[in-house]
Amino acid sequence: MTQIKTQLLNAREGIITEQMKLAALEEGVSPEYIREGIANGSIVIPYNPKHLSLKKPLAIGKGLRTKVNANIGTSPEHADLDEELEKLRVALEARTDAVMDLSTGGDIDRIRKAIIENCPLPVGTVPIYQAAVEASEKRGIAGMDEDEIFEVIERQAEDGVDFMTVHCGVTMESISRLKAQGRILDIVSRGGAFLTTWMLSNNKENPLYEHYDRLLKIAKKYDITLSLGDGLRPGCLADATDRGQIQETIILGELAKKARSEGVQVIIEGPGHMPLDQIKANVIIEKKICEDAPFYVLGPLVTDIAPGYDHIAAAIGGALAAYYGADFLCYLTPSEHLRLPTVSDVREGVIITRIAAHAADVAKKVRGAIDRDIEIAKARKNLDWDRQMSLAIDPERAKKIRKESKITSNKCTMCGKYCAIDVVRDYFKTEKLTCNV
Amino acid sequence: MTQIKTQLLNAREGIITEQMKLAALEEGVSPEYIREGIANGSIVIPYNPKHLSLKKPLAIGKGLRTKVNANIGTSPEHADLDEELEKLRVALEARTDAVMDLSTGGDIDRIRKAIIENCPLPVGTVPIYQAAVEASEKRGIAGMDEDEIFEVIERQAEDGVDFMTVHCGVTMESISRLKAQGRILDIVSRGGAFLTTWMLSNNKENPLYEHYDRLLKIAKKYDITLSLGDGLRPGCLADATDRGQIQETIILGELAKKARSEGVQVIIEGPGHMPLDQIKANVIIEKKICEDAPFYVLGPLVTDIAPGYDHIAAAIGGALAAYYGADFLCYLTPSEHLRLPTVSDVREGVIITRIAAHAADVAKKVRGAIDRDIEIAKARKNLDWDRQMSLAIDPERAKKIRKESKITSNKCTMCGKYCAIDVVRDYFKTEKLTCNV
Repeated sequence: MTQIKTQLLNAREGIITEQMKLAALEEGVSPEYIREGIANGSIVIPYNPKHLSLKKPLAIGKGLRTKVNANIGTSPEHADLDEELEKLRVALEARTDAVMDLSTGGDIDRIRKAIIENCPLPVGTVPIYQAAVEASEKRGIAGMDEDEIFEVIERQAEDGVDFMTVHCGVTMESISRLKAQGRILDIVSRGGAFLTTWMLSNNKENPLYEHYDRLLKIAKKYDITLSLGDGLRPGCLADATDRGQIQETIILGELAKKARSEGVQVIIEGPGHMPLDQIKANVIIEKKICEDAPFYVLGPLVTDIAPGYDHIAAAIGGALAAYYGADFLCYLTPSEHLRLPTVSDVREGVIITRIAAHAADVAKKVRGAIDRDIEIAKARKNLDWDRQMSLAIDPERAKKIRKESKITSNKCTMCGKYCAIDVVRDYFKTEKLTCNV
Repeated sequence: MTQIKTQLLNAREGIITEQMKLAALEEGVSPEYIREGIANGSIVIPYNPKHLSLKKPLAIGKGLRTKVNANIGTSPEHADLDEELEKLRVALEARTDAVMDLSTGGDIDRIRKAIIENCPLPVGTVPIYQAAVEASEKRGIAGMDEDEIFEVIERQAEDGVDFMTVHCGVTMESISRLKAQGRILDIVSRGGAFLTTWMLSNNKENPLYEHYDRLLKIAKKYDITLSLGDGLRPGCLADATDRGQIQETIILGELAKKARSEGVQVIIEGPGHMPLDQIKANVIIEKKICEDAPFYVLGPLVTDIAPGYDHIAAAIGGALAAYYGADFLCYLTPSEHLRLPTVSDVREGVIITRIAAHAADVAKKVRGAIDRDIEIAKARKNLDWDRQMSLAIDPERAKKIRKESKITSNKCTMCGKYCAIDVVRDYFKTEKLTCNV
């Protein structure tokens, strides 16, 4: 492979790449807007040229539609390649924007290759998982060799992974601040836990921090977008926005700056579990400390007491985070905190996270976001059910619910002939001329 | 029945009633706090002494836990008393705080009596529904007699209804402002639509506005809490926060003041469909214009494109509204905009709305709200699944999801032996001393 020039290096030189053009078309913005955003670090296009099946470059960041990621992948307890490919199919059908393969069970290489091959969208991974799993089988996580970590990163890059979570901010300093603070749920990030175990067992600094240059070299070679992971993200409301978490963010801000100076695209991962009133502050902090790097959040879950409904706790927090400026929402499914998600969980997770993202996009006035809401409202006014269904975020479910009611009229069983819209129809012939949003 | 003295009149005289005491106990506040809130109008206790099965007086308003209401009731298309009683049972089991019977089909009197008899929580109704349905069957909605409306209100009060939605703010003035503005979905409130039809057909003012004194007299007699309805609430994002809607709020503010001066408790109903960024302003406007009257919101739904998931669109908006000060959330179910809810929809609607209410309560630091989140987080740390389940908002669903994964270890199938919590356990022996929330 000849050395490629990253999107960021191109953007900085004023070059608009084919990927920038395609992403701009998709967003309805100018290619120059995308180029400028990439150049200043507020937009990324995770696109590894080795990912041959990636047909639609995706731009993530400032001023663009909020994107959604679906996590799939095996675990030691449950590993079935066919099931993972079915999850991928369902996630694509439900219109996720990106997919992460988080496999830690079965033949990890084979599963990843299959997912990448079958995924026309950006694929992300967390290489430390595979490194830890491979080491764990031989010598335990503490026995993991530093070179192994980088070998796995390069192996995954070579397969075509477009973005990688790397928990570079879990350092001796941030762990020590975390310990000094005290937490209920110390570390809930798997990657963060693996690295912490390695570091504290060996009394050595995090290799992803210590040898960050080596990481950047690989990332630059394949134009991997680094997703600087939040290994110290809070795992419950009571741990949110503590000194350990913010210390990690500060370090990630420094590392983001360095990545950019080397021409490597970077996004920042965020919490986690967080009371609703802390979300705005967290988004502002990330955007300031990390100089506008796109913010990729997991949730945040606004309560801890909703196992079975954590996708909803996360949709509440995600909508709010995205409204305040988060750019990329990682889905949660009804299985969060309970089990590996099933195929139907994946579908549910993607759609509900899309609802949160869309609600935020309407509120932050992303170009065209409200158009579909206006169209479905007009279809409601006309009691045009076919059109309502075609505009619904999940036509299949909407149709099923209506059909089960065995309605035969053009109303619905909620009101029947007392349908408010129909009752007053004759009295409102005026046309709405302006939109209030 | 001897003339009773309303909670508001008692409060104003400095008297702490039995209901205030019980409600205070339930909230963990002093009886004096409740009394003062009722006296100044920021708290209500919907409690009609005729509702003999009402065992637990419910206080709604400022500084208290956010409450949840479940709408049940028949329609002309679907009317089955047994099914409605089953919905009631399920709503109670899912721990709703109040129930509204919105029946418009079948034997409305019989259904209401049965629901009231079987409901130990406050029951609300929308009397104009029954008045319009009864008139509609004889002479059409436009042929409804003014006396019939008040007769139905008194009939329902006599049965023990605790709070009533009355769309008194749908006036010639507010309708005219609505028309001048223009909307996509003119009126989506059934009560609003019935009254508008009657008013515009007969060219007469809304009887509930014109004869508001007559309404107050009945409300005072039974201590019915008036829920001043938002007949002009927006039915889609594009119609939100328009001049018609705000004009109605202004009128409701005047009517709230008048109700209080007569010793009648009052709450205000709010939208509806609304972009996320307008929610805060709407709560502030209601609280200011209506002088701190408790705010009862339906949603707000933060997108129009989610039929089948409208309970989630509403949970996002509801959590935010409650955080900003809304006091009472009316649930939505997965059936909203599609059909009359089923029994399982009712369960889902209550639980999801409780999640939104709880998330808001944690964020606005309602006394004790976060305690359960802290406890479940501790149970997670200890991998104590029984305790996690017992603290979950819906233990039944959480258990079912975990059980389906056929896990046999004390971990879950998401991570198995790579459980982050377990991996780092030995490195974190510190105790968290303070809570960050």
